Amino acid sequence: MRGPYERFAAPARAAMPRLTEAERTVVTRELHEMKHRGAPGEPLLESLRHVAAEVPERLYTDSAHVLLRMHEIAGSGNLQSNLSSLPLVRACFAHELVDHGGRAELVVGRGHIAPAFYAERYVRGSLPFAPLTTLHQGGLTGVVHRELGFRNTMRYSLGVGVVQAVSLAWELTRRGESRKVVCLAGDGELHEGAAFEALRFAYDAGLTNLVLVVDANGKGIEPLAKPLNTRYLAAYLGTLTEVDGCDGPAVETALGDALDAPGPSVLVCRTRKGEHSFKPAGAQPAPPERPVSFVTTAGRMLAAHQDLSGAELAVFTPDMAARFGLRGHLPYTNTGLAETLTVGMPLSLPDHITKVVATDAMYYMDSLSMLTEATTSVRNLLVLAGRSWGAWGGAHNATNMLGLLLHTRVYEPVTAAEFHACLDRLGGDPATTHVLSMVDAVFEPLPQDCSADIDGGVWLTPPGESPDAAVVTFGYASALVAAANQGLAVPHLHCASLTPRLDPGVLDVLARTRRVLSVEYNGADGGFGERLRSEYLLPVDVHAVRRDIATRAHHHQLPLHGMSTAQLRDRLVRLLERREEAVHAPAYA
Amino acid sequence: MRGPYERFAAPARAAMPRLTEAERTVVTRELHEMKHRGAPGEPLLESLRHVAAEVPERLYTDSAHVLLRMHEIAGSGNLQSNLSSLPLVRACFAHELVDHGGRAELVVGRGHIAPAFYAERYVRGSLPFAPLTTLHQGGLTGVVHRELGFRNTMRYSLGVGVVQAVSLAWELTRRGESRKVVCLAGDGELHEGAAFEALRFAYDAGLTNLVLVVDANGKGIEPLAKPLNTRYLAAYLGTLTEVDGCDGPAVETALGDALDAPGPSVLVCRTRKGEHSFKPAGAQPAPPERPVSFVTTAGRMLAAHQDLSGAELAVFTPDMAARFGLRGHLPYTNTGLAETLTVGMPLSLPDHITKVVATDAMYYMDSLSMLTEATTSVRNLLVLAGRSWGAWGGAHNATNMLGLLLHTRVYEPVTAAEFHACLDRLGGDPATTHVLSMVDAVFEPLPQDCSADIDGGVWLTPPGESPDAAVVTFGYASALVAAANQGLAVPHLHCASLTPRLDPGVLDVLARTRRVLSVEYNGADGGFGERLRSEYLLPVDVHAVRRDIATRAHHHQLPLHGMSTAQLRDRLVRLLERREEAVHAPAYA
Repeated sequence: MRGPYERFAAPARAAMPRLTEAERTVVTRELHEMKHRGAPGEPLLESLRHVAAEVPERLYTDSAHVLLRMHEIAGSGNLQSNLSSLPLVRACFAHELVDHGGRAELVVGRGHIAPAFYAERYVRGSLPFAPLTTLHQGGLTGVVHRELGFRNTMRYSLGVGVVQAVSLAWELTRRGESRKVVCLAGDGELHEGAAFEALRFAYDAGLTNLVLVVDANGKGIEPLAKPLNTRYLAAYLGTLTEVDGCDGPAVETALGDALDAPGPSVLVCRTRKGEHSFKPAGAQPAPPERPVSFVTTAGRMLAAHQDLSGAELAVFTPDMAARFGLRGHLPYTNTGLAETLTVGMPLSLPDHITKVVATDAMYYMDSLSMLTEATTSVRNLLVLAGRSWGAWGGAHNATNMLGLLLHTRVYEPVTAAEFHACLDRLGGDPATTHVLSMVDAVFEPLPQDCSADIDGGVWLTPPGESPDAAVVTFGYASALVAAANQGLAVPHLHCASLTPRLDPGVLDVLARTRRVLSVEYNGADGGFGERLRSEYLLPVDVHAVRRDIATRAHHHQLPLHGMSTAQLRDRLVRLLERREEAVHAPAYA
Repeated sequence: MRGPYERFAAPARAAMPRLTEAERTVVTRELHEMKHRGAPGEPLLESLRHVAAEVPERLYTDSAHVLLRMHEIAGSGNLQSNLSSLPLVRACFAHELVDHGGRAELVVGRGHIAPAFYAERYVRGSLPFAPLTTLHQGGLTGVVHRELGFRNTMRYSLGVGVVQAVSLAWELTRRGESRKVVCLAGDGELHEGAAFEALRFAYDAGLTNLVLVVDANGKGIEPLAKPLNTRYLAAYLGTLTEVDGCDGPAVETALGDALDAPGPSVLVCRTRKGEHSFKPAGAQPAPPERPVSFVTTAGRMLAAHQDLSGAELAVFTPDMAARFGLRGHLPYTNTGLAETLTVGMPLSLPDHITKVVATDAMYYMDSLSMLTEATTSVRNLLVLAGRSWGAWGGAHNATNMLGLLLHTRVYEPVTAAEFHACLDRLGGDPATTHVLSMVDAVFEPLPQDCSADIDGGVWLTPPGESPDAAVVTFGYASALVAAANQGLAVPHLHCASLTPRLDPGVLDVLARTRRVLSVEYNGADGGFGERLRSEYLLPVDVHAVRRDIATRAHHHQLPLHGMSTAQLRDRLVRLLERREEAVHAPAYA
């Protein structure tokens, strides 16, 4: 584990220009303390507590104000979610649930309210200010993590918090311990089937030590269709109490009562929440000519396809209309935070309708059997798989796995023309589900694309007669490599298909090229490059993602995976320089 | 689509020895009719209706008796499930829900009660007897399928029926149609999170046309921990009626009332169910020396490991204790039919405990994000993935996909020694989740195994000096190929690891071998053989599964995938005979 200085100093320094004079002064002193504090193996929170003790003055005394500053400095995040839960978070501190060994165990299912805990720790004097300036920038994560003082870590699966809480409640019961487990959940997250499975099991197994606390703000990303169904929760947890979640003392009292009372219970805090995603005050609406994230153009492109082809579309999304830019472009059904249902909604629709499912690539991973039901029985199915790898990331191999399902083909279009070519291809091959990986990033448009032959490849930099080296790239990686290749002129083949059908001319060039590198922004195992090796027995070197995702913003994610422009450029330079002998042999030699 | 003769004649003839004299006579006449009936493109059910009209006499008039005979002839199946739902099935016929265009749409979520519908069709004169003799034998499927007169097909995902019903109810609502959708579900299946997601959406979307009918027999495979929570269902569907499900007239009346009443509703039929799996009357318990399905020895092997190593085990299974032979060998927690929860139950357990999750390989596919939470945060995790590909099959690529998750390694042990070697390996590498594909088949023990080096390969038939051909196999396929290779003596390398680490000596032999065939009983795409090509650039020919699974018994499943002894033997003979030139080149040449 990195110490506090290694973790926070660089992003805190990068944040300096966005700080007030007073903040800068404090952060500078704190970094100085961190640098000279280095008990090896000391838990991160413990080190930070000591630093806070050395620089004890507080810039702010209200954690709501601290939260606002954190989001202003970060420039993004979920400020309103954090604010809606803040009285609840304060009540957790008041009842000593936050640090291990307190009155009860606390599992935070509302994963992205981690900042509310940091803010509260700050005003209580156990956290310095410097880490707060690094939210989403490689320092503090916006989602709960064990390293940062939480009992649980959330990475992939929505609804996992309730499952983690029930896992713990069951284990404590099995060990004969009577401590309670408090689970903080959101009303949107309770839409997830996994949360239901956990509550049903807790009831059937007779667990008496579970206290479910719900921040019922009536909103996921968009407003929920109906308020939280309290009769459902009471059916499984018995005692149900409702309280005004904006009334701090009332929340604290109600939580204490739930901890004192015997048996399981549920505490519903009625709260209010503003816009889901934080926008800095005074931020201008994006001018029309400004490039936007590719994924947000999906709605417009789908509408254009509908106009051109006359196809009837039925669009389903689990609360991600904003991400895919659907609103105002075409009708859609918001299925709520219910991933598996969303994937199953096309199952009974007539053949002629083009069914569009739009969610995060990661979320399909909890619905692959349901998706296989669809790919084997539904015609005209378009699966949009958003991938950000950003602050709330996506499993790096989701794209590869979707390609392994029966009757699917995977594309990662990076131009509108490629997107339309994929839809046209679906029209001609409706029995094959077309999965489109939709990149959540802003990037320079490619000079050429695969729209003329969406299954093939196109040279962005032509190979000439007899090239020594070449790079073959998939989807978004093509844009990254094209930027890195400026001035180097490495022959560069771009593919939009995860499993391209390369024509004999292209294969002939690649087979005669001494060194071939493949680059993709998805998992190495079973991915684009390995498929090139396996399918064509081309001895390509695979440059792809090999580590876990991290909860940090996209531009901080890229260097983790060797995908920054500088790193890729360095890789291409080495490709040009590398000697021949070491390369052409198979991996075992 | 195959006509009735092509579909039913061969399995019906194979069943003849198990039929009564009277049954044989009728079946012979029916097959004669089928053979001479052949309106091309006629729906299967329509053809069968005509055959039944030509041979109108009925051997039995009680569909319960027909169900018993079907299961006696098949020798396996879920007789008791079918019997518990039979009054409900009869009520569906009485209200004309079974054929399309009837009073309402019927979606059968209790997938394996298809035989009750066939039996009822038979006594009502619209189905001949011959198909009934082919259940699970390649003729009739035990699970609902559109080809066989159902509105929906079930293949992969438990709980999909409720999702299909809600998909249809939503689509009818969108089209402005007022027809109702009746969904037949079981109380066990309602444990699935996907079913909850569907009911919650139906409520939030204000669907008024859903009638949920629950066969509440209080049993999955084992008895449910608590009876169906009716307050939960009433919270989402409003009107709830309970009826004695064994009282045919009462069920029929209650279903009629639900169809007549405005708005959504739920009808709970309290029924009784005997043993989940059918055992022929008078069947002897298996003598101890008789070989049993490998998967059922898991409980005994886990207990032996616990005794030897002193490890503390926590075992979780979604109602599959019988399949893995857990009972009587070690304690386990039955989580009910809640796949995602089961995968998440290890999340909060202490590091030192060996966490064992035991379910069907297919069911993990709806929980891969949850599983990734576990593989990235839990130590000492053992994932048992049962695979039958039998009457209730498993997605053919589940094994491959599990191997793509972060921090996993996949093995398919086929001897007790290999199983123990996998557990020892987990003990030495607790940060890596060990996935064990557990084969649900009886097979001859291998003469040698990989227990000494579980990541490597072992020659079952040694290669000699300079072999012309060799076959490399994975797990269960090794047993299949060993049987086929008797007398042929093709050099044969067996691996227990999906991604073996072959030593230089073995690789040297394979690289010098003119023709290498790989055989695995999982999906070709991204599987064992493709990994050999990709990892070692060995130009192996991959023999693996390329089609969908089918709902039929194991010995009928093998030939579908070219895995019968005769087919494999033929493949090995061709390997020995094949000329050199066509083989060594890469796939694109």
